[in-house]
Amino acid sequence: MTSTPLLTDLPSYPKLQALASTLKRARIDQFFIEDPLRTDSFRVQAAGLKLDYSKQLLTKEALTLLLQLADEVGLQQRVRALVAGEPINSTEQRPALHSLLRAAEGGALDAEFRQVCVTRERMKHWVDRLHQGAHSGFSGQPISDVVNIGIGGSDLGPRLTTEALKPYQGHIACHYVANVDPTDLQDTLSNLNPASTLFIVCSKSFRTEETLANGLVARQWLLAAGATAADMDMHFLAVTCNREAAAQFGISANNCLPLWDWVGGRYSVWSAIGLSSAIAVGWPNFERFLEGARGMDEHFLQAPGEANMPLLMSLLEIWYCNFFGAPSQAVLPYSQHLKCLPEFLQQLTMESNGKRVTAQGTALEYSTAPLMWGVAGTMGQHSFHQWLHQGTSLCPVDFVLPLTTHSDKPEQLRQLVANCLAQSRALMIGRSESAALSTLLRRGFSGPEAKRLAPHLVMPGNRPSSTITFEALTPETLGALLALYEHRTFCSGQLWGVNPFDQWGVELGKEIGAEVLDQLMGESNPSDDQTDPSTSALANAWKALN
Amino acid sequence: MTSTPLLTDLPSYPKLQALASTLKRARIDQFFIEDPLRTDSFRVQAAGLKLDYSKQLLTKEALTLLLQLADEVGLQQRVRALVAGEPINSTEQRPALHSLLRAAEGGALDAEFRQVCVTRERMKHWVDRLHQGAHSGFSGQPISDVVNIGIGGSDLGPRLTTEALKPYQGHIACHYVANVDPTDLQDTLSNLNPASTLFIVCSKSFRTEETLANGLVARQWLLAAGATAADMDMHFLAVTCNREAAAQFGISANNCLPLWDWVGGRYSVWSAIGLSSAIAVGWPNFERFLEGARGMDEHFLQAPGEANMPLLMSLLEIWYCNFFGAPSQAVLPYSQHLKCLPEFLQQLTMESNGKRVTAQGTALEYSTAPLMWGVAGTMGQHSFHQWLHQGTSLCPVDFVLPLTTHSDKPEQLRQLVANCLAQSRALMIGRSESAALSTLLRRGFSGPEAKRLAPHLVMPGNRPSSTITFEALTPETLGALLALYEHRTFCSGQLWGVNPFDQWGVELGKEIGAEVLDQLMGESNPSDDQTDPSTSALANAWKALN
Repeated sequence: MTSTPLLTDLPSYPKLQALASTLKRARIDQFFIEDPLRTDSFRVQAAGLKLDYSKQLLTKEALTLLLQLADEVGLQQRVRALVAGEPINSTEQRPALHSLLRAAEGGALDAEFRQVCVTRERMKHWVDRLHQGAHSGFSGQPISDVVNIGIGGSDLGPRLTTEALKPYQGHIACHYVANVDPTDLQDTLSNLNPASTLFIVCSKSFRTEETLANGLVARQWLLAAGATAADMDMHFLAVTCNREAAAQFGISANNCLPLWDWVGGRYSVWSAIGLSSAIAVGWPNFERFLEGARGMDEHFLQAPGEANMPLLMSLLEIWYCNFFGAPSQAVLPYSQHLKCLPEFLQQLTMESNGKRVTAQGTALEYSTAPLMWGVAGTMGQHSFHQWLHQGTSLCPVDFVLPLTTHSDKPEQLRQLVANCLAQSRALMIGRSESAALSTLLRRGFSGPEAKRLAPHLVMPGNRPSSTITFEALTPETLGALLALYEHRTFCSGQLWGVNPFDQWGVELGKEIGAEVLDQLMGESNPSDDQTDPSTSALANAWKALN
Repeated sequence: MTSTPLLTDLPSYPKLQALASTLKRARIDQFFIEDPLRTDSFRVQAAGLKLDYSKQLLTKEALTLLLQLADEVGLQQRVRALVAGEPINSTEQRPALHSLLRAAEGGALDAEFRQVCVTRERMKHWVDRLHQGAHSGFSGQPISDVVNIGIGGSDLGPRLTTEALKPYQGHIACHYVANVDPTDLQDTLSNLNPASTLFIVCSKSFRTEETLANGLVARQWLLAAGATAADMDMHFLAVTCNREAAAQFGISANNCLPLWDWVGGRYSVWSAIGLSSAIAVGWPNFERFLEGARGMDEHFLQAPGEANMPLLMSLLEIWYCNFFGAPSQAVLPYSQHLKCLPEFLQQLTMESNGKRVTAQGTALEYSTAPLMWGVAGTMGQHSFHQWLHQGTSLCPVDFVLPLTTHSDKPEQLRQLVANCLAQSRALMIGRSESAALSTLLRRGFSGPEAKRLAPHLVMPGNRPSSTITFEALTPETLGALLALYEHRTFCSGQLWGVNPFDQWGVELGKEIGAEVLDQLMGESNPSDDQTDPSTSALANAWKALN
């Protein structure tokens, strides 16, 4: 791979800096007055999604320069390298082929694509078998419940997909257990019947501490309920690269679905890691989910920069992060079924781009991945929106809004939509002191009282947002939405010059975790030599009680 | 009320600025070498909680100056004004008496305290009645499920409490519905039996759009199942200041528990708003919850500054926010039952202190409330911890760790504890390039490979955290924990000079929401005159589909 330049070394960077410092004094609402057709210019669609980014602090000039930035970093070539299967994950010297997982054909990657197709067939086999009631537990009862045991990328994607597609839910209920805290599994199992419960143990390495611990407890739970060791094949599937370790756990090759080293955990919902959600919604719906993502892939590959939705969203991320110093980005889905989206995107964006060196190991002096966060609207309006409107930190918002509902309460949907639109408008227009004053007088406050209170009602406005809409939350639009953020994350990684596919920063914690675990298990108390005085005091406090 | 000075005008402020700029080059791990007894100096306990803040980038000198800052702002007097019932919520000219809700005596606030006691008795009556199976629905079946309908402060507190105290759960299951998105209520009701379901409609004003909409649908659901209008009193309780509006909804005075204007929504879990959680865990446990908070109140009032846990945590918040520019603060509970804590604290801290003017209306030029966020450990380790360790943003962490478990899987608890301790240590010590190199060589990488990869394993460390531990997650420790963060929020509000008890910034969104709703309901399409072109285009897109 050629080395990527530093963002700050790109020719357009200083021009954008200068422009940003001018635009800090500009008003978004003024842009609409200057150009009444602005919304038409700052709107794109792709794969069933529409992005309105006209409420951003962005001019055509800024956009042109940002698109140049993408050219200067050679983004198009990077995208081609990504889909061609070049070892774009350079530190681990392997490709990142998550798009192939939802592809309709393999092209030059035919060998890998054949593996994908074989695995899809095996997934379909399991889904259909379970849906037909043809797979039974140890007592002969058909499976009624599936528990996915996995963490991080082996949890967040299928958890989100199952929740988002609840209206497509069939008769098998899927549950998600991730935490090593024993109460997570215990609370889940307390409502389930061992005789009709199937576990899917998802771990790329089959070495994940949390997942193995929970898997073992699940096994004990089945044995305690009367299953024998020989029955385990009726109750356990595995999704992993490490078939040997799964076999040692007692999961036979037949029950073991593969992963490949060219799929990162946080990009793996399209692989067999998605099996639990495929079981929840049925195979045809899972295929529609893949198709939706494929539509976004095609758009990402083909659309020119100025119409390319993932690229535009990435440029906005860079714009606020690196030219306005915005430390965070909120995603607010106005849809209860998308309540898991912020946590999914937290992993996708922050684990991918939360890096301090380039792909070549050069330390960076500029910011990378902003903090990604949010909750489902309208919940946040009664919580942190005060901060969004009147806090002192710049936080661009992505509103995500399905325009119709699967429910039969259209009047509530109307309220939901009105709230979403109103929030983006309120963030933009704000409220001046004189408007605050009139509002208070209209409400019957006396002159002096109104004057005293007005500053508290003032909102600076000019707070940027995009709104992503789609006709309905379907398997296709969900697939397109997740692929959109995947590609946005890829583009931002390239612009920052980091490798979005590794995660070396999580290793030290694991190593120290093993050391601390030894100390907690040891006969003697941990000493300050083994660790630091704070950690040894905390460890000793635990030992005194356990 | 006397006017509070600006943080930046306090005499200690420039001294702290100078000290912070020196400390930016200091190392936390070095502090432990210089002072092996550091952990003893930077540790306090209160009401069953222990705070270890020795892994903070803090020296005794800095702490002394921060405590002076608190003196200079007159914090002690402010605390006394708070508990004495002075109108500390100055914009709304009323007191903030959440501590009185858990008090054992009223002192000078005897009139209010008597109302609190009467309400506690009424809550106890309802809890006991339901637990005894003495309250039945329209068909004579005893109540088996309670659905709390509320949003923001009428949801997050009881939701957290019910979840956190799951091991104390009795035979009545409590559910929480907040979102105006109709799927929230619909999904909840799909598993419930109308004949044995009780709704608690929580809204201070009884005008909350989401809550009333959901309440009406709940009513229709009961009527559709065969209940009559006369049966509604068997199925609805209200918690509100606005008894008239509740009566209009059809909830009789007997079924209506009061709130008072001196309780803010985000401080109201101790009031009748907590009724659903009291039903979940039973009255004696709810009383223990109040007692735990009371213990923290007493500590907060009595402990000197250097031993005062809420004050110390607030000073740390100010330290990183205003002297190091940290834009966010993570809270990571290593306890699955505390998974709702971050969202609760998000409202508590960001709605309270996400302000841009002082209590007197002066615009601020410094930062207030950092973004508060987090998820339960160990989940985050497989998601955003990469960013915590190697990202480019400073984010102090509060680890929250119960030292024992209600579960019978102590080996998993040991793993959980080891992970929590290891994360705080890894954040602090980091990994140098030479350590990274040895690690890679030890793992069998060739010299050139190890050299190429080492920069990716480097972690700067020096990332600050506190660890809050307690023996077990009980009603008492939960109460103490929430009261701790309440008082921390109060102290920070005083230091920033803002009023932590109002939320004027949420009003404009509501006003515009009503306008947009009118446009969505109207016969003609919204025009750009009524709103901006982006919002009218989005509204018209919705109308075209609905």
